This record gives sequence, C-alpha cells and structure tokens, in this order.
Amino acid sequence: MRMYDIINKKKRGRQLSEEEINFLVEGYTKGEIPDYQMSALMMAICFQGMDEQETLHLTLAMRDSGEVLDLSAIQGIKVDKHSTGGVGDKTSLVLTPMVAALGIPVAKMSGRGLGHTGGTIDKLECFPGFSTALTTEQFYENVNRIKVAIMGQTVNLAPADKKLYALRDVTATVDQISLIASSIMSKKLAANADAIVLDVKTGNGAFMKTEEEAFALAKEMVQIGMGSGKQMAAVVTDMDQPLGNAVGNSLEVKEAILSLNGLGPQDFMEVVYALGIEMVLAADKAKTAEEARVLLEQTIHSKAALDKFAEFIETQGGDKRYVYQPELLPVGSIQLQVMNTEEGFVSRILAEEIGLASLALGGGRLTKDSEVDLSVGVLLNKKRGEIVHSGEALATIFANNMEKAKEAYGRIVRAYEIRQQPVAEVAMVKGIIRNGIRQ
Amino acid sequence: MRMYDIINKKKRGRQLSEEEINFLVEGYTKGEIPDYQMSALMMAICFQGMDEQETLHLTLAMRDSGEVLDLSAIQGIKVDKHSTGGVGDKTSLVLTPMVAALGIPVAKMSGRGLGHTGGTIDKLECFPGFSTALTTEQFYENVNRIKVAIMGQTVNLAPADKKLYALRDVTATVDQISLIASSIMSKKLAANADAIVLDVKTGNGAFMKTEEEAFALAKEMVQIGMGSGKQMAAVVTDMDQPLGNAVGNSLEVKEAILSLNGLGPQDFMEVVYALGIEMVLAADKAKTAEEARVLLEQTIHSKAALDKFAEFIETQGGDKRYVYQPELLPVGSIQLQVMNTEEGFVSRILAEEIGLASLALGGGRLTKDSEVDLSVGVLLNKKRGEIVHSGEALATIFANNMEKAKEAYGRIVRAYEIRQQPVAEVAMVKGIIRNGIRQ
Repeated sequence: MRMYDIINKKKRGRQLSEEEINFLVEGYTKGEIPDYQMSALMMAICFQGMDEQETLHLTLAMRDSGEVLDLSAIQGIKVDKHSTGGVGDKTSLVLTPMVAALGIPVAKMSGRGLGHTGGTIDKLECFPGFSTALTTEQFYENVNRIKVAIMGQTVNLAPADKKLYALRDVTATVDQISLIASSIMSKKLAANADAIVLDVKTGNGAFMKTEEEAFALAKEMVQIGMGSGKQMAAVVTDMDQPLGNAVGNSLEVKEAILSLNGLGPQDFMEVVYALGIEMVLAADKAKTAEEARVLLEQTIHSKAALDKFAEFIETQGGDKRYVYQPELLPVGSIQLQVMNTEEGFVSRILAEEIGLASLALGGGRLTKDSEVDLSVGVLLNKKRGEIVHSGEALATIFANNMEKAKEAYGRIVRAYEIRQQPVAEVAMVKGIIRNGIRQ
Repeated sequence: MRMYDIINKKKRGRQLSEEEINFLVEGYTKGEIPDYQMSALMMAICFQGMDEQETLHLTLAMRDSGEVLDLSAIQGIKVDKHSTGGVGDKTSLVLTPMVAALGIPVAKMSGRGLGHTGGTIDKLECFPGFSTALTTEQFYENVNRIKVAIMGQTVNLAPADKKLYALRDVTATVDQISLIASSIMSKKLAANADAIVLDVKTGNGAFMKTEEEAFALAKEMVQIGMGSGKQMAAVVTDMDQPLGNAVGNSLEVKEAILSLNGLGPQDFMEVVYALGIEMVLAADKAKTAEEARVLLEQTIHSKAALDKFAEFIETQGGDKRYVYQPELLPVGSIQLQVMNTEEGFVSRILAEEIGLASLALGGGRLTKDSEVDLSVGVLLNKKRGEIVHSGEALATIFANNMEKAKEAYGRIVRAYEIRQQPVAEVAMVKGIIRNGIRQ
C-alpha cells in the first residue's frame, strides 16, 4: 500500500477502504507518512468529501491511535456531553450538577484548550482549592459516590487527531464537515461513555454558520457514534449571539450559580434543558422528553442541583462557600459600561466580536502557555430583540487594564447591530437528532 | 502575506496575485514555506486551476529562482525545441543537424534525466569519445562556427521547479495542465532561446492521453512563452504507438542516421518535418511552411544534414566514422524475435509497454544513478495499420541478458493489439499553434 495511491484515489473521487484509512492513520501517527502527503490528501478530501463509511473508519482509526478509556468501574449508563463551541457557553457547569442530581454518572476528562475564555477546568479554578489532579481510582470513586468528577486529561486520547488537526490548521483544510465530525468523535469515542449528547452550534459565532451545515455535521457525528455502538443525540442550537449574558470565566461561573438558583437567562436555560433532556433520556431515567424536563426542573426548584454543585466543588478540594456566596468570586477592578447611541432594537450581537473582546481583556488563551485572567469579561445588558434607548448601557466590561478595556469597548460596539424595526424571535433550539432520527 | 491565506484563497477558487505567487515561490525555494503547505496548495490548484495570468506569473517566478542563460554571444535567432516526451522519440538527433545545416544556431543544454531510454546525451555517447563537458566559451564558439553544440547542464536552471516537481511527484499533483505548462516553460525560459518550438505528444504513450488535453497544454505553453516575449510554436503529434521503429539508445541513433540518409520511417519523418518547419520559420529562414519544407528536404537529399551531424560529433570529440558506418554502433548480443500468433491488422501498439520493455532490458534509468546499457532495445517490425500473419515477427529484441529479454518479450506481446478489420490511417500531426494561432 502506498500513500501516493491513496491520495490519487481520493483526488479522483473514489472511496478509501478501511485498510487504506488504517494504513494512513497509523503511518501518519508513527511519522512514516510525511506531513506533505497528508496535507495533500486533506485538501483532496476538502474537494471530494468522504462518505459515511470512510468517515467512520477514519474516526475509529484515530480513536485507536491512543488510549481508549475503560469506564467499566463506574456504575450506570455514562453520558458524555460535547459542544462544538461558542461564546458564553457555560452549559456544562449547570447541566453536570443537574443530571448528577438525578443519579446519572458524569465522568469528564477535560483539557484547557484555546479560546475566548478558559475551558471548564479554568472556570472551576475560580473556586479556591479546586483541583482536577485526581488519580484514576479517585476519579472512579468520586463518580460512583457523588455521580460527578472532572479529571485533567492525563492520558493520550486520539493522538492522531491531535497531530492531524495541527496540520489541517495551517493548511486551510479545517472546514470539511466529515473531517470535523471525525476529529470531534475520535476524542469522544476514546473517552468512551455509553451515550454522547452533542450540542452543535450554528450562527455567526459558531463554526457552522448555517443551520444546514450544522445539521449536516450533527448527522455525521450521530452516524459515527451509532456506527461504533454508542447511544447518540445531537441538538442544534443558536449561536447568532452569545449564550446567556456572561462571557468570561468568573462571570460565567456566577451566571451558572444564578441558573442553579432558578435565575438563569431564558435563552441559556432553553439550551440547558434541551441538552439535559437528551442526557436523561439516554441514561434511561425518563421515558419521554416531557418527563425528563420535569425531572430536570425539579433539580433546580429543590436546589438539589445547586447542592450537588457545592458537593462536587468540595469533593475536589474547592471552597464550597463560593457556591452559596457567588459575590466572593473575583471580578475585574475596572467596570466600564458600553453606551448605546441610537434608538431601536438589538437585531444581532456578533458573538465572535464579544468573544474577541473577552480574549483581549485577558480572559482566554491565544497560545497554550497564556495565563488566563479569571476575573475579566463582558456582561451583556441587552440581548437580541430588546428595545434600546440612546444613553443606555449595552454591556459592562470587567477589566484589570484600561488599554485592554478600550480595545474590548470597540469590539463590543461593533458587535451590536441596532435596527429600527422590531426583531422576530429566534428559536434557541433548531432541532434534535436522537439516535439518527430527526425529532 | 501568509501562505495560509494563499492556500485558502486558491481553495475558494480565487485568483492569486503576482505578489502572492512571487512570495510563495521565493519562500518555498528558500525553505521558508514548508512542503506541507505547498502540497496543500498544489492539490487546491488541481481542483481550482490557474488562469493565464497566474500561470505566467508562476512560470516567471520559477524561471527567476535560478540562473537565466545569456545567449547574446551567439549570433542569429536561437531556436530551442522541446518534446513533452514519448517512446522512440529521436527527433532531436535528426532535426538538430538539419536546421544547423540551414545556418540556424542550435545551442542545447541537456540533462540525462530518467526514462525508458537514456536522454540525448546518453544516445550521443554511443559515439566513442563524444563529450558534452564544454566550457561556456567553447560552447558559444562551437555554435557560432558550426551552428550546433550540446553542453551538459552545469548551471542551476529553475531550481524552484525542480523542488516543486519532486513534491508534486509524491503528492499526486502532477497532472494539472497549468502546473505542467509552467514547469516545462520555466526551464525553457531560463534556457532563454529567442524562439521555442514545442512537440506536444498525445496518445496512450504520452502524458496527455487525448488530443483535447494536448491542445490545451500546447495553448497554455504558447501563451506563457508569448507572455514573456518569445516566438512560440507548438505541434501536437501522435504518440499512440512508438515513434519510428527503434526504441533504445544505439538503435535510435542508427535510425537517426538512416533518417539523415533519407531512409527514415515515414511516421517519424512527418514529425521531424513538422517541427523543422516551425524552427525554420521561427528563425526567419523561410516565408512559408512549403518553402521551409523544401529547404529541410534539401539538407537530407544533399547529405548536408548528415555531414553536419558528423562535424558536430567530431567537434565534441566523438568518432565520426560511426556516422558513416552505423554498423559499428553497439547492439545487444542476444537478438530475439517476438512472434505473432494471429492473422489481422495492427490496430494499436501500447507505447508505454514498449518503453517499459526497453527499460527492463537496461536501456533506461529508473533512478539517477542507474547505468544505461546503450546497446539494448526493441526494433518494431510491424507498425499500426500493417497486415500481420501468424508466424511473422512483430518486433526484435536486442538484449544482453536472457531473463531481461523474456520480460521484454511479455511486455511487447501485451503491447500489440491485432484486429480483424483494416485500421484507418492516423494523422501524425494533429495540429499546429503558431504564435498563438491554430494553423
């Protein structure tokens, strides 16, 4: 088997066999196939695509390039949740204690990653003492006892994907739907939960700009998961403005705590419930979506989810007082309001720009070695559809540096689109694919 | 400027600017742009193509990546000739003395290259003592005095093309017409003759399988040449069977000498005259094609071309007796006839298979370091259209090793297609593009 022939075959639009895909993933991981052949193949795939079979084989080969977790020590149906990424997305912080409170085991391995804010681990480090440095035994023990644990990613999940993604990133071959699907799913399959619930974002702040693209990606990921024996659901959700009001680490944690107290922003809670319902159904804790929603709502009303969150923070060494007194969480010393200058309705908030404002403030990572400032961020006072008057604050910047605050200010002004006409309401949940069937 | 953006732009089907093309060729030549980005761009070009402007800019940038010859020390209009390569193509050996005999200066810089037989230099080394190790001064002096000289390629012509071609060769990105055109033309423009005559082969033994592709390539190369101020002509010729009867170094030299004696195979001489006419017209030695042909025919009938060939061999240290006594040239010690087993007409001779037979005999180079056996090869007794009877010899193998002869035998049998119906005559010259106008 020769890599040349594989490139040429794909270039001519033909299907690659399982053997060919295994050969190329193994060869590339070992460094036997050079980057320049792999990037040519990736570009050919951008033009010719891959079918369902090829995408599944690529995903499985990448999954098998490293360790595959063995979660058999954890009791019950393990449910994993993944978001394709957006701005202001703190759903995990709220969902995790909600479903754990219902007895669904959540065993999460998390990295820090790059982005507009830190990752889930960074956000949880707002709680003094909190640590994800668990041994595997502690991790399993915690999940069995309190149903939730988050561990820093210490093992090498899907290293082929890591290497391939880095190559795609510098050769303009990231935006191919089957490659995106197999990249995400190879890591999820290596994490090896029984069920996977995907939050596929769509809109100006998402990788998938149109609903059509988002559904196509959702469908491919669900197919891959089902093809490898997982229970699968995907929810396509709106990312045409930031999710909720808070963007930035401690601001998002505060908003999560508000949400666990029943005071979450409506757009955000809609997404939380939609994803939660899929998790509850996948874990077999309810028969219908309606039933699942009632169960989830009870975890909020009874404060069971809030208490679960506090228990989780405490179990991993964090100070749980902060859960009940979120005003203790750090916020930037400079608070600057972004003023509105025209009358009208907010028609759009460019999520990307808000994300970049948070990044500019120091709230996210540009490179792996960046320090994240947990206290900075942006709080949106006005969201899509709201009436705004001249002189009202659109948003509040939390910063520790005036220059950075000014940069963020400019971005936030650019992010807001104000129109004279009222704005039609936009559904937060565009659709659901549950075990391959569009609901 | 970033290579990433250039790749992405081309991937989306947009035109690259002159600045972008210069940036990428310079960066790649210097090693600042890595192979993996270049191969991704090459694959994107395979799908999106390049327009006339982009192709010209790429060619000029590759030309300028190394030395551009200064032929101003040579008097007269310098005419270069290039073939896209085929099996049994010994046109240069015959054409060069013909046009030199008409006073047209032929200053050729030649490499050895890879292929089914050796290159022109290998073939000329059939003459004991012949050498292409000339100084630049000797080279110019020879051309001015006897109108012909061939020098081994000592300078670095179009190194960007060399590096890029090696990359394309292993990434399945060779067969894109604008890339082929710019690769060939960058070297021709660096060799810097005043006029360039191209022999673009088409058919099963050529890179361009169809006439349509061959004309498209011819047109692109003519456009590039004209765009950089050269006189240009391209002749599209048949390569659906080997050209002439001889394939192999000394066998081809013998056939060339036969041709200079007026005994050349008809198909071969048609191609020689078609190319010769373009060279004579480009050198302004005749006003019409008819006039040019008469002049060329006279060089054969008068033996002026044969004598010019002998003079050329002698001037570069070779033994000119071999020109007048070609029976002195070495031939393989084993002569094996390939027998026909069916009655009918030769409908096709797969040129590629005949070439591989010659290569198998040791007549060509697989790698740069291969030794070429000048004495081996294949002589075709039957060509397309001829009646063949069972028991007749289709071809004769000249070998020095029985095992290799057997391998060649099998290939030659596979190469011949015999049909019951007579075969329509095929035009050797498919068409001519002269200074941009299809004749």
